[in-house]
Amino acid sequence: MREALSEWRPLVDEEIERLLAREMTDDDFANLFGEPRFAYDTDALNEALIEPTWDLLDRGGKRWRPVLFLKIVEGLGYDPHEYLPYATIPEILHTGTIVVDDVEDGASLRRGEEAIHHRYGTDVALNAGNALYFVPLKIVSANPADLSSEQQLAVYEMLTFELNRTHLGQGTDIVWHNQCNIDISEDEYLEMSACKTGCLGRIAGRLAALVTNQPTAVEGALAGYAESLSIAFQIGDDILDVKNSLDEAGAFGKAFGNDIREGKRTLMTIHAVQEGTEAQSERLEEILTADAVADDEIREVIEILQTTDSVEYARERALEFAADARSHLDDLDLVPAVEDDLREFTRFVIERER
Amino acid sequence: MREALSEWRPLVDEEIERLLAREMTDDDFANLFGEPRFAYDTDALNEALIEPTWDLLDRGGKRWRPVLFLKIVEGLGYDPHEYLPYATIPEILHTGTIVVDDVEDGASLRRGEEAIHHRYGTDVALNAGNALYFVPLKIVSANPADLSSEQQLAVYEMLTFELNRTHLGQGTDIVWHNQCNIDISEDEYLEMSACKTGCLGRIAGRLAALVTNQPTAVEGALAGYAESLSIAFQIGDDILDVKNSLDEAGAFGKAFGNDIREGKRTLMTIHAVQEGTEAQSERLEEILTADAVADDEIREVIEILQTTDSVEYARERALEFAADARSHLDDLDLVPAVEDDLREFTRFVIERER
Repeated sequence: MREALSEWRPLVDEEIERLLAREMTDDDFANLFGEPRFAYDTDALNEALIEPTWDLLDRGGKRWRPVLFLKIVEGLGYDPHEYLPYATIPEILHTGTIVVDDVEDGASLRRGEEAIHHRYGTDVALNAGNALYFVPLKIVSANPADLSSEQQLAVYEMLTFELNRTHLGQGTDIVWHNQCNIDISEDEYLEMSACKTGCLGRIAGRLAALVTNQPTAVEGALAGYAESLSIAFQIGDDILDVKNSLDEAGAFGKAFGNDIREGKRTLMTIHAVQEGTEAQSERLEEILTADAVADDEIREVIEILQTTDSVEYARERALEFAADARSHLDDLDLVPAVEDDLREFTRFVIERER
Repeated sequence: MREALSEWRPLVDEEIERLLAREMTDDDFANLFGEPRFAYDTDALNEALIEPTWDLLDRGGKRWRPVLFLKIVEGLGYDPHEYLPYATIPEILHTGTIVVDDVEDGASLRRGEEAIHHRYGTDVALNAGNALYFVPLKIVSANPADLSSEQQLAVYEMLTFELNRTHLGQGTDIVWHNQCNIDISEDEYLEMSACKTGCLGRIAGRLAALVTNQPTAVEGALAGYAESLSIAFQIGDDILDVKNSLDEAGAFGKAFGNDIREGKRTLMTIHAVQEGTEAQSERLEEILTADAVADDEIREVIEILQTTDSVEYARERALEFAADARSHLDDLDLVPAVEDDLREFTRFVIERER
């Protein structure tokens, strides 16, 4: 899968550029969005939509959702090259969500540089981020690979379903943060994660099924695979943040204990609240809901996570979700070499080191 | 049309409440958004999505887009009651856009009360506003009035088209504001207005055509009617802001010269820049791009708008758009009494006093 990521990534980026050129002309805007009735201000539109989008896209990102889509298409026995435009859908949506999430979370950095709203202003960032929620729907209307109208409708309904749920996940997470609530049930936490992170993964899986016209059961299995993979990925990410903090402890000037500083709820903090002593739970609540957190306090949280075995617990749960993801592959009849890659990917999302 | 507004408004609100109850239960969330895989935090979801939405809806608003939709359905010879769920689509979308626009514009008031992001926080407001972009798509999936799958697909494609264009309009307006550019061509201004304001009107018109399965020419004429009506409405709104400032000049503690204070580009300011002396254009630029504007400066802008005949010019253009809207009705074969209402509405949007 690591090879697939580096092999397909440039093709995905080319495809995004085919849709949204780095500098759009009058004709590009008219082709994508329809002829103006009067006249577009093309310079303003490039500044409003295209510059901030490419700034963020050019900072990297793994593009794992488009590559997941392409690998699944390949696994189902189809040529991924024919479906490349659809691969951009989850990536463009993801790009939109991170711009908006950074405004919502008050984040100042993204991929090692200024957050988009810091560089371009909150107004430009939000409007561009929101525009990226709707641009991918244009791909469905343009109908590359000549889907039937039933397939197109199914794609719209799938996107409607998943994009609604992403907002449930994000909304829940925001309210927990604002309420200073850290006593959350594991099921509520996992639902939040399934909605907030899982839905974009599910889009990649379900889209691959829909564009190749698979039966509902296949779509369901691919959705299940992608959702559990995404949850495992998220838990892996959260563990990595703690591990990096442990290993580097502020060395290299690298950000340290980011998630703790932001008071992020993770499977680890939820487990620690449940398993820790009353004193430990109280300290966790104090530190995770504080406006400013000292380095010593970050070390204290990490120690609580360790003494309650919460990092190990989260790792086990991540392994369970990875296993659940693989179990969905058992229900499918994929090209064997590709199936191996998809299985390996469920390990990679937990084992990866960055 | 005024009667239609007061007659249909409560039915529209009931219908919104049928979709989004004022306090949603576990089952309500599951019915609307799908069963949870683990467990929803229902309290958090109500707080994140439902409270801010109803707070804003309960503040009023004319609901003219849903009523326009219903009147057109009636004019086409169908029973509006059967299509009530669809009437909520433009209103819910409109509600989402004003929450987000208020964040983007840094507005502090909306419908006489605190802007939603001031009351609930920027994070909650943005996520709720964005959620309202996707909730109405659920209505299309639920398929009330049993549309054919071709009709459903056409509705999705129409919404995709129009919602993309609203972001072009808003993006253009934001960039003008940030660039301190007040020297805009009238065509660029009208395009911005057609995109930003016109698209939500077009949704009402096109939706009425699509759910009743009209030929493309009818959909086009209704889109044209609704777009020109919306532009006339917007120009009327801008004129009203100047008129209220003239009449009341700060009396009754009412906000005075709001648009000028915010540096809003309007057809009047654009005309004044083009027709005024160099000194007048410079003063307009200074005042409209200033961070803080004194009451004297508002009076100065109004005086420039008057000496350049810009208010009168805008009024003439609004009348032309209203006439253009009516000309689209000539192409249609609507129920005569309803057609009269739709014609009267093109006058109301300019003549109204608030």
